[in-house]
Order: sequence, then C-alpha cells, then structure tokens
Amino acid sequence: MFKELKREAYEANVALPRHGLINLTFGNASAIDRSKAVFAIKPSGVDYVALKPDDMVIVDLEGRTVEGTLNPSSDTPTHRRLFLAFTAIGGVVHTHSSYATAFAQAGRPIPIFGTTHADYFSGEVPVTRKMTPEEVVGPYEWETGAVIVERMRSLKAEDCPGILVNRHAPFAWGPTAAKAVESAVAIECIAHMAFVSLQLAPGLTPIESELLNKHFKRKHGPGAYYGQAGR
Amino acid sequence: MFKELKREAYEANVALPRHGLINLTFGNASAIDRSKAVFAIKPSGVDYVALKPDDMVIVDLEGRTVEGTLNPSSDTPTHRRLFLAFTAIGGVVHTHSSYATAFAQAGRPIPIFGTTHADYFSGEVPVTRKMTPEEVVGPYEWETGAVIVERMRSLKAEDCPGILVNRHAPFAWGPTAAKAVESAVAIECIAHMAFVSLQLAPGLTPIESELLNKHFKRKHGPGAYYGQAGR
Amino acid sequence: MFKELKREAYEANVALPRHGLINLTFGNASAIDRSKAVFAIKPSGVDYVALKPDDMVIVDLEGRTVEGTLNPSSDTPTHRRLFLAFTAIGGVVHTHSSYATAFAQAGRPIPIFGTTHADYFSGEVPVTRKMTPEEVVGPYEWETGAVIVERMRSLKAEDCPGILVNRHAPFAWGPTAAKAVESAVAIECIAHMAFVSLQLAPGLTPIESELLNKHFKRKHGPGAYYGQAGR
Amino acid sequence: MFKELKREAYEANVALPRHGLINLTFGNASAIDRSKAVFAIKPSGVDYVALKPDDMVIVDLEGRTVEGTLNPSSDTPTHRRLFLAFTAIGGVVHTHSSYATAFAQAGRPIPIFGTTHADYFSGEVPVTRKMTPEEVVGPYEWETGAVIVERMRSLKAEDCPGILVNRHAPFAWGPTAAKAVESAVAIECIAHMAFVSLQLAPGLTPIESELLNKHFKRKHGPGAYYGQAGR
Repeated sequence: MFKELKREAYEANVALPRHGLINLTFGNASAIDRSKAVFAIKPSGVDYVALKPDDMVIVDLEGRTVEGTLNPSSDTPTHRRLFLAFTAIGGVVHTHSSYATAFAQAGRPIPIFGTTHADYFSGEVPVTRKMTPEEVVGPYEWETGAVIVERMRSLKAEDCPGILVNRHAPFAWGPTAAKAVESAVAIECIAHMAFVSLQLAPGLTPIESELLNKHFKRKHGPGAYYGQAGR
Repeated sequence: MFKELKREAYEANVALPRHGLINLTFGNASAIDRSKAVFAIKPSGVDYVALKPDDMVIVDLEGRTVEGTLNPSSDTPTHRRLFLAFTAIGGVVHTHSSYATAFAQAGRPIPIFGTTHADYFSGEVPVTRKMTPEEVVGPYEWETGAVIVERMRSLKAEDCPGILVNRHAPFAWGPTAAKAVESAVAIECIAHMAFVSLQLAPGLTPIESELLNKHFKRKHGPGAYYGQAGR
Repeated sequence: MFKELKREAYEANVALPRHGLINLTFGNASAIDRSKAVFAIKPSGVDYVALKPDDMVIVDLEGRTVEGTLNPSSDTPTHRRLFLAFTAIGGVVHTHSSYATAFAQAGRPIPIFGTTHADYFSGEVPVTRKMTPEEVVGPYEWETGAVIVERMRSLKAEDCPGILVNRHAPFAWGPTAAKAVESAVAIECIAHMAFVSLQLAPGLTPIESELLNKHFKRKHGPGAYYGQAGR
Repeated sequence: MFKELKREAYEANVALPRHGLINLTFGNASAIDRSKAVFAIKPSGVDYVALKPDDMVIVDLEGRTVEGTLNPSSDTPTHRRLFLAFTAIGGVVHTHSSYATAFAQAGRPIPIFGTTHADYFSGEVPVTRKMTPEEVVGPYEWETGAVIVERMRSLKAEDCPGILVNRHAPFAWGPTAAKAVESAVAIECIAHMAFVSLQLAPGLTPIESELLNKHFKRKHGPGAYYGQAGR
C-alpha cells in the first residue's frame, strides 16, 4: 500500500544529505497524496544511511498513523499544518542547513539580492515571529506550523516556497516532494550568497523589481519559458 | 551530426557540478564550431545527472535551433551575443557559483590581490553596470550579453576571460569550452580568496603591476613558459 | 579479547574523518567497558585510512596498557580523567574541527542561539579557563581533563555533552562512543551556525528558555518523544 | 631510473587535490634524493587526474633536467632554492589553498592562536616581504625562493615547516614529501581557524608560550612522545 508515495518521500529524504543540507538525523521530508488525504513522512531519529522506502510512515490529515511500524518524525504536526493550509503543495522539507539556520537564529529574513534568489522566490525569504511561551509549551510542532501559516497570510505558497522559523530553521515546500527539496537547496544557497554579499556591502539594497519579476516569471506562471514545459 | 561539438559542450556542462560550481540546474556551458557557425548548448532546466551528449542543442549564430529536440538553455541569446562579439573564443560558461555571485549581487568587481588571480586575468574581474528596466523587460538574455560586451569594450576577451553581471552571476569564456570551465573555476576560487583577504584587510590595495604582469604573461601570450606548449 | 570494545572505538574513530571533523591524524575517540574498567582508544599518530580495529589500545582506569602493541593516543590521560569523573558516559571524542576550534582559540563559549543547539545542549557550549603554566608543564593531558572537570562542576555531563578547551579544541562525550561522535558533529555544526549568526547580528541574545527546554527535553530525559525509543 | 623518487613525488602531488588544497593545475610537490643530488617534481600545467608517476621530471641541484620528457613545473627554481638552503628537508609543496592564500594576499602572517597550530609550528606562519620589481622581472621563481630563505634566516626549517609568499601563496616543506604535504594541509587548516578566531575576537593575542612549547615539543625533538616513534 502507498508504495509510490513512500518512494517519493524516501527519495526526497535521502536527497537531503546528498545535497549537504543535513547532518546526523536533522531534518525530514514528506510527500502527500491529496486524493487519499494521507502523506508519507520520515520516521523519527532514523539515520539516513539506514533508511529504506518501507520505513516511511503514512499519516492522515487528522494526524493518525495509517501505516508503518515506526514513530513518524516528531515534526509531523508541522508538515500536517502546512499541507492543510497550502492546498496546492505536494511535499514539505525541513532542514537545519547551516546558512539558512544562521539567518533563522538571528531572526532575519534572507534579503533578495540577486537573480539566483529571484529564480525561486518573488521576494525575501520571510522569517516568522518568535513563538510565545504558551505556543512552545503547548502542541509545539502544530504551533510551529501555525506561525508559518500566520506569516504566509499575505503571501502565496507558490511565490514563496519556504520560510525561516525564528530561532529554529527553514521549512520548504513545492508542488512535489522533489520540488520541495529543490526549494530547500535554493534557500541554503541563497542564504550563503546573501551572507557573503552582506559582508561585502553591509547596506546593500534588494534587487530591482523589474529584474526580480523577470527572473521569477521566467520560471513560474503562464509566461514561463525556462525548462522543457513548452515542448 | 555535430557529434564532436555536442561532446565538447556535454563534457563542459558535466564538469560544472564536479567542480562544485553548480547546484540544481543553475548554469550552462556551450561550445562553438566557427567553421559551421553553430554552437552546442545545454538544454534548459535538465538535471546534470540525467544529461547525455545527445541532449545538447545545436543553435546557429542567428539563434535558430539547427538540431535537437529539447529547448536550448534560456540563456542561449547571451551565449550567442558573446560568440558574436568575441570572435576568438570557443566556449562560454555561466554559473551561479557562490562567492562570485555574492560579488555580483553586491555590484562589486573582484579586486586583483594576488598571483592566483593574475594567473588568469590581467586585472580585476569586472562587473557590468545594472541593466535598465527597458533592457530587462525587452529581449532580456540578449541584453545581458550586450551589457557584458559594453563593459568589455576597453578590454580584450583573452586578457579578461570572464565577468560578473550585476545582480546576477558570472559568465566566463575561453579558447575552448574546457578552458571556459577553467576560467569559471578560477573566478570562484579568486572570489573566495578576495572575500577572505578583504575581511582580513579591508583597505587592501591591488597587486603590484610587475607581479601581475609576470604571472599573467608566464601563462599567456608569446613569452609564456608555463605548461607543455614549448615541447 | 575486548573484540567488541575495540570495534566500537574503531567505528567511532573512522567516523570522524567521514564527518569532516578531522584532518591528518588530529583527534581520537575511545569507548569504555565499565564492567571491566577498561577503555579502547586510538593509537597515537596513526593515519585514519590505515587504521584497523585491532590497532585499538586497551587501557585501564589507572592508565596502564592492558592490551595492544602500539602507543595509545597521547591524549589518553584526558580521556581517562573524563571517564573517571563522568561515570555515566560510554565514549569520549576529541577533534580539532574548524569552527569549534576557532571558538576555543578565541576563548569564547558557543552561545546557544537556536534549536539545533538546544537539541543537544541545555545551554551554551562552555569553554574552560586557560591552563596555568604549572598545569601545562606538569602532567599536561591529565590536567587538561582536570580543567574540563572543573568547568563542568556546576553542569551535568548528560545536559552538556561537550566542551571547548581554551586555546585548544573541543572534547565531546555521550552514553556510547557513537553518541560521543554525534555530540562532536553537533558541536562543529552549531559552532558554524553561531559564527554566521554573530556576523549577521553581533549583539544577538540567547534562545528563549522555553524553546530551549522544549527542544532539549523533546530529545532527552523521561518525557522525550523524539526517535524510536517509545516503540 | 629514479623510480622510487618519482613515486614519492607522484604520491605527494596527487595527495594535494585529495586534501582539497588544489584546484585545476595550481600547485606542485617535489621529493629529493640527497645522495644523488636530484629531485623529482611535477611537470608544468598537467592535470592531476592525468598524472602518472613516470611523468615526474628529475632535476639536479644546478637546475638541469636529468630525466623526463616534459617541462618541469615553472616553480622548479623555487624548489631548488629551498632544497639548497634547507639541507635537512626531503620534500617541498606549493599550493594556492584558499585561506592560506588569502593571508598571503593580505601580506599578513598567520598568528598562532591555539594548539592545532603549535602542533606544527613553533610560532606564527611567517610571510615574506614583497618582492621588488627587479626581483620580479629577473629570475622570478629563483628570487621567490630567495625571499623565502631571507625571511627564514632567523628561523629553523624544522621549527617552521612553511611560509606565505607575499601576494602569492604558501610553500611548505618537511623531512619527506609526504611530511611536506602534511605541513601544507596544516597551514590551510590553521589559516581557516585563525581567520574565524580573528572574526570572533579581532584583538586576539597569541597562545601562551608554555602551551605553545608543550604542544610543539610533544610532537618534535628529543622529548617527543606523540606517535609510534618510541616503540
């Protein structure tokens, strides 16, 4: 059962250490099957080298384990919150990649300084507000999803495929789990570049809006001409 | 048809992730056959691990696809502009390598601080002016090539085998596609070193002209004695 | 004899270069068998690629070599001091990993800025006081252990699985040698992130206590729900 | 002829990219046979992946090629100058490793901040004076060796197994070519750590002399007890 979904989630999970986004057992990826209202997610605290497709845990949108013998990731309620709020996304990825996490720890969004960033995001990579003590001691992982959704209220998930949780680390998403991995790679990459740019030019202003729009729309939306979609 | 040319472009493209210059599908390389006035270039948005020599797209100097079933790189007009302007070059490479892109985002040339840099460039790695809104909303990729050519007006392509496009990223070139890859590797490497040198010594002045000339001419031009050319 | 213990120590040692924590022959790992009051440790100055399980040296808690034909690591007395003081630990790891060592050289603890850090430590990664000239010219490696134990007096080894020795480098520990390696990986990772966060926000304050406690207790102690322990 | 010597030089050369010290064809290593007064050195501009032991060029101490069909490294006169001045060394390595080169470009020695550094050097990693225009336009590579020897006048080659050439990059040496590689690895590693320490603590003072001496003498000289030498 759910063999294809488990494989999609598995492939996304093992891609994370391959892209240098993950140390130890940090981070996790999930993939959703909207027609069945379930998602597959990494089991909690299992080493990536030992991971098998069948270890993926199937969870429904009420948070119940539907299939699997291992505990799902402790971050499962955050994934669930995001799948409920962003109805067009197909996968969620959470990493503690170094430069993106450094921005998250500092409570700073990643400013949009160039076209690498604009190829993926139509603006800065936002950062959530800090969570309140009540949210932290309450159903923490669900509330983590809730502050993400709150910060995204004025943004579209397809224009902003990821966010930094304050004091924590990035979450990313996309139309598929593989695309969510791509968003997570992009976030780390642009965080590194933004850090270096800021060291070189502390008062650097964001990219000009025409160039931002050009690059973002070259890859996204009805006029996109990047890739092989038009063939 | 164009089997050798496709292979040259293919080898240059797959060298990019191997040298750590490329994440995801960023970047592209091309190789030109001047006798046939066509160049081979990476297809748009195809993953490097899936790439095959036969996927390369053959484009002529008017920008028409001559052979190939995939869309050529969206940056094809930039490559074409450079092949038209710099008649001695045989290959063009575009990357979003981290440190070089950070300088590009900051709108700063890479200062020439040492012999590593002088082994490849006879001066700083220049940065283009910002593109105007008109250029950006117009034929953007062609105009990208045009601002490069404009900035290079006072420079020779063989003395300056690459440039930073403001807010964007580096483009590099060379007498062959393999040499263009080498230029791209050198640009990232010297960007990293220049960044660290600037952190250590914020007001650092450029390398002395005799040492610059010595290293550049040791490798380039009629008196070069580096390598095996004289055997 | 001690075949299993040697293997545990061996596995921990060879994991160090694999995690990028070790250059050359820097660093070492050990594993203790409390029932026999002996520990297995890396031989001194042997290259990691040449290392075999049988090269591990078995040393007792009085510091005598019990089995093995090679000299044990010159840092053996430090490991021994830690095994004597922290009676619940099963392994010790010493590295010269770059960012953690940079904090140690600067005599600065690693501030706790985010949840990555709080997943492993219930506070900052402490730094010892500088050693006195007498301690240095005396039984140096034993005294190194002693300043660690002194700095840990107000802390529990399970809440603080590692430390920076001033002017020197990190030591880490855990319930097993494999967990000590994990602590060492975490220390390097959070040192890198803290460094970048400090560059982005020089006056950054530590993580809020509720979030710190939440993350630390999610993974440690009676209420822990991370991983597969509850199954 | 010189089969063993060529192999030693070959092994040292191919170790350089494996340790991440080399990009492209930057850098070179040599090994000397004092009894025959010849050394083996990398051919000029040959790619490391294509290099074979038999490609090594045998050069005598007057600078004449004794065996080999390729041009020796353009830096051969620098190696020769060092072999003549430092009569106890068995190998020389030149790299453009990133952090060490960044210090060289900035004209700054690498300060000795911790025990990692003191394990290899009994003081800072020195930097030469800048070369004069006359030296640069003269027999440049020989003069490069001469400014190294000049700076080393008050130092012993065994206490200081490497140096930064101002505006250029590091040279390292040791009793064997393999040990010279180790010195080059250490220089890059301590340059990185010193850079980060300086960012964390701009006015940081050098390591205390007792600790410096302890670590240096633990590994070097008659009282050394690191490694397996005493068995």
